[in-house]
Amino acid sequence: MSELRTLVDRAARAALPRLTEAESAVVRRELDELERGDYSGPLTESLRKLAAAVPERPHEDSARVLLRMHEIAGSGNYQSNLSSLAIVRACFELGLAPEDGPGAGAGAGTAVTPTGTGPAELIVGRGHIAPAFYAEHHVRGTFPFAPLATLHQGGLTGVIHRELGFTNTMRYSLGVGVAQAVSLAFELARRGEDRKVVCLSGDGELQEGVAFECLRFAHEAGLANLILVVDTNGKGIEPLPEPLSRDYLASYLGRVEETDGLDTAAVRGSLGELLAGPTSAALVCRTRKGDHSFKPTTSAASATAPKPARAPDPARGPDPAPAPAKVSFATTSGAVLAAHRERTGREPAVFTADMAARFGLRGHVPYTNTGLAETLSLGLTLALPEDTLKVVATDAMYYMDSLSMLTEATTSVRRLLVLAGRSWGAWGGAHNATNLLGRILHTRVYEPVTKAEYAACVERLEQHPDVTHVVSAVDAKFDPPAFDCSAGLDGGVWVTPPGPGQPERAVVTFGYASVLVAEANREAGIPHLHCAALDPEFDSATLALLAGCRRLLTVEYNGVDGGFGERLRAKYLLPARVHGVRRDIANCVHAEQLRRHGMSPDQLRDLLGGFAQAPADDAPGEGARAAAYA
Amino acid sequence: MSELRTLVDRAARAALPRLTEAESAVVRRELDELERGDYSGPLTESLRKLAAAVPERPHEDSARVLLRMHEIAGSGNYQSNLSSLAIVRACFELGLAPEDGPGAGAGAGTAVTPTGTGPAELIVGRGHIAPAFYAEHHVRGTFPFAPLATLHQGGLTGVIHRELGFTNTMRYSLGVGVAQAVSLAFELARRGEDRKVVCLSGDGELQEGVAFECLRFAHEAGLANLILVVDTNGKGIEPLPEPLSRDYLASYLGRVEETDGLDTAAVRGSLGELLAGPTSAALVCRTRKGDHSFKPTTSAASATAPKPARAPDPARGPDPAPAPAKVSFATTSGAVLAAHRERTGREPAVFTADMAARFGLRGHVPYTNTGLAETLSLGLTLALPEDTLKVVATDAMYYMDSLSMLTEATTSVRRLLVLAGRSWGAWGGAHNATNLLGRILHTRVYEPVTKAEYAACVERLEQHPDVTHVVSAVDAKFDPPAFDCSAGLDGGVWVTPPGPGQPERAVVTFGYASVLVAEANREAGIPHLHCAALDPEFDSATLALLAGCRRLLTVEYNGVDGGFGERLRAKYLLPARVHGVRRDIANCVHAEQLRRHGMSPDQLRDLLGGFAQAPADDAPGEGARAAAYA
Repeated sequence: MSELRTLVDRAARAALPRLTEAESAVVRRELDELERGDYSGPLTESLRKLAAAVPERPHEDSARVLLRMHEIAGSGNYQSNLSSLAIVRACFELGLAPEDGPGAGAGAGTAVTPTGTGPAELIVGRGHIAPAFYAEHHVRGTFPFAPLATLHQGGLTGVIHRELGFTNTMRYSLGVGVAQAVSLAFELARRGEDRKVVCLSGDGELQEGVAFECLRFAHEAGLANLILVVDTNGKGIEPLPEPLSRDYLASYLGRVEETDGLDTAAVRGSLGELLAGPTSAALVCRTRKGDHSFKPTTSAASATAPKPARAPDPARGPDPAPAPAKVSFATTSGAVLAAHRERTGREPAVFTADMAARFGLRGHVPYTNTGLAETLSLGLTLALPEDTLKVVATDAMYYMDSLSMLTEATTSVRRLLVLAGRSWGAWGGAHNATNLLGRILHTRVYEPVTKAEYAACVERLEQHPDVTHVVSAVDAKFDPPAFDCSAGLDGGVWVTPPGPGQPERAVVTFGYASVLVAEANREAGIPHLHCAALDPEFDSATLALLAGCRRLLTVEYNGVDGGFGERLRAKYLLPARVHGVRRDIANCVHAEQLRRHGMSPDQLRDLLGGFAQAPADDAPGEGARAAAYA
Repeated sequence: MSELRTLVDRAARAALPRLTEAESAVVRRELDELERGDYSGPLTESLRKLAAAVPERPHEDSARVLLRMHEIAGSGNYQSNLSSLAIVRACFELGLAPEDGPGAGAGAGTAVTPTGTGPAELIVGRGHIAPAFYAEHHVRGTFPFAPLATLHQGGLTGVIHRELGFTNTMRYSLGVGVAQAVSLAFELARRGEDRKVVCLSGDGELQEGVAFECLRFAHEAGLANLILVVDTNGKGIEPLPEPLSRDYLASYLGRVEETDGLDTAAVRGSLGELLAGPTSAALVCRTRKGDHSFKPTTSAASATAPKPARAPDPARGPDPAPAPAKVSFATTSGAVLAAHRERTGREPAVFTADMAARFGLRGHVPYTNTGLAETLSLGLTLALPEDTLKVVATDAMYYMDSLSMLTEATTSVRRLLVLAGRSWGAWGGAHNATNLLGRILHTRVYEPVTKAEYAACVERLEQHPDVTHVVSAVDAKFDPPAFDCSAGLDGGVWVTPPGPGQPERAVVTFGYASVLVAEANREAGIPHLHCAALDPEFDSATLALLAGCRRLLTVEYNGVDGGFGERLRAKYLLPARVHGVRRDIANCVHAEQLRRHGMSPDQLRDLLGGFAQAPADDAPGEGARAAAYA
């Protein structure tokens, strides 16, 4: 199957019930063409070819396309895309995004690779505005509709990627785009090439220290070929405390122009002028942005959501469209903190790098939004009184650029609670972040899955104020499980208890994986121990029981390297087979993410079924042990 | 023994041969007084008391005291201290450093704790200028001479620490001081206290992104109580590419004044005015700095070094004064890179965060000094051509604030060589940094100890360009060992081979620890396997041999948590007892550092002797295994 068909066929068919009749007709034609035609070339070439083969367009306006993409997806960063749409259109009009389709110059791999075409190189640092480019490509005739209908639903990613025609790939944190642009500008200058680099950035991401390092270096290295276009909407996820400082930009980029960022002609005019100029410069584009995350509202849905083109086909199985939202477990953080404050009378000082919504802080506890600056968030705890509960809240992966400052805090500060969001969604993230946090001096990591466990983590910090408590706050929606180890947070609790005597095999799970495994284990009924601690301390009876198993399996929805299972092997020499995440997190929705890492319900059922039936009489010798590890 | 006596007695006596007669006389009187008197109070109180009890001063001028401290120590950051001396004197004159002695308000712990005394709080962000404060205290009568004679030699640390009377403690990276100051200013403002925070910083440290995040936040939070004093000597370790941007400072601090930083009266006048003012401000102090690290030169030595007061006392054992310097192994990096370039014709692109000297780059390979900005250094590799060898060179611990950007690079860039300096010296460092680097996606970590092993690491990258190679570049001086596993970098090589048949016990060591253990094992003669890889791959014969040992010991001069020994336990379930670093790195010289972590020659001899003699007939069961781990 061609790369493009593999990407979109299943997801586009699943999306059909959510499409208008016109959209549905186009998608069907595209899928048919994709099945019949030769689409063996690279993805970008196939996209152009398919767009040409099926010239019908259900919508003429890219803003409308953007809205429909997000309505169909049911999630995403619609407003961020909309905020940049005029800038994106100006890039097209200036030839910065190739007219003949996405990524004429793109190739394999993810390193930044200049195209050498057009008036300048374009680096898109606003990682999640890929949809704006796709929408614009679509109405210009160089991008089919079917992939657009798969956004965030197992097909098209919303994040900038070279495979989809960009010069750069975005993967982790904001701020990387500016580094990519400066790296490229420095390299072009070194080669003596008289060619500029345009970097599309946002006023939110410029709050990060790395962006400063890059702009400072560009200035000090005398680069005259960097044009920083700033989508200045005054918002990260939350409103910025103060507008982006133009004086700051001027101090490192020299020339700073300002324009109406919602007016394509104005952006095109200003940017064109700067491209023709002899120096580096910043173009501040004044834009507007609504809510960061797209949420289908009742009124919006009734106003814009189309009737299904036809009834869902039961043969396709359950409709993967988003179910009415349970809340993400991470959003219960605010309530837990509020309850703790009430119980102890201890006023928390909460710092968040723009993630109050994710942790449900508003209305529960006061907090200071530090902007997109994790190192600062940790730094702000350094001089607070000993009695204050210090809470820092951001995504686990964002701490990876702050582990030294975190160590400073874990070493010098008492009563430090680090909330480390665990995103398994569209933006991606580093699968090893939690393990890295667990390697920092004076820390203990927990991944609670019930409110009681979460509260027990905060209570444990109250008892052990010298140890920084890291809560891996799972960004997934699940029903409260029946098991809970809040009474013994450092040990384990049996989800499926073993019968009398020594069981032959057992499965030990960490945090959120316990929820997944409990569900998948209903049939197999293997003795199942749940732990909330990344590094549990087993009592001797439990340890003897685990050590006595002929076969032992650990499951964690977490990086294997240095994780839960490996710690049990290293600490207790338990010959466990370790099941966990071995690849990096990709940009896709939760259900797709589970599948990618072997954690979907059917995959886990298979794993447990196989584990229950494998012969147990080959007691693990050294050889078997090493093999079981891999 | 009193805390002060414990700190200085041994080291001060060892320093006696390097003192002038006048100095020696004072130190002897102080040591006598310390032995006789009641010095049971906290360190700062004892210092004041001793200084008062022995009022003689061998030098009247604190600049002269500073020079003598560094001549006696034989190392340190003399020029950095000298650069700030007038600023420090101005702080004394303004009452920012308490006249009645160091740290009247200091207490236990290392969190920033405001004194509440004097006209403002003083945070010293230039971490290594503690000696300038001590020297000034000394001539003002509030600090004895004996501790000054122990600087960097097992007594006094040169780094800011609350135990020695500062409001803050410096531990890890530069940039922390600005965070501490902003945290304190924010907290004072929150409490409604009308009190300013003075932060002594340097133009080098302001190159780091975290300092930007802090100043940006101070501005956006509307702080009016932060006075940033910048020692502006135009140098980090190397000259800055461009002077500190005053416009940048003005964009976030509003008011920027400039003064002659070598003129105490000028600094006092300007700083006093800013302290009385209603707003936050920066004071740019123009200063001068020579070579970053103090090196005793022949001419300087002959000009200033005093004759020993008397002949060294053989009963005290070998004189711990610095021996004529062998070169640090890390400084051979430049030559290795040059040889690789010659062999392959591949031009390297080398980025260093101000550490060219440490890696011996100059004269061997061209490099770009990025200033004190590690995240940027990694970011600059993102857009380089695939064929280019990308080299980033800084201290292992400094990568801890750049692991996300590093992951970006290890995931997207080919031919990436990360040089991670391993400092076990006066500045301290994080003992777990190498292990964290080893947990990053697509990396392999090696700690070579011979030139051939170092070259093999770079050659291995040539063969495996998709895997980032991290070289833990040891900052220690040692004779080239006779063993070498350059022929099989991922396995091990026997330093002391086992006899025929299965040995009863063996010791497996990693990198630099192999050098230490080889020396200590001469008497015990235990079979000893050396590995250069943090995560070795043993062939089945070696693995069977190790697994067959009744007792196994691993030694690494590296953090235990997630390190070499634990990886062998996790990967191969080898029931090894793990000897390594379990506490954080302190600020002291190499020999003292070794002792602190149980790695000094006599400690290792004891360890190996005990290991060789312990009964081997208790085959490690599960219980023994767990016990052996701890």
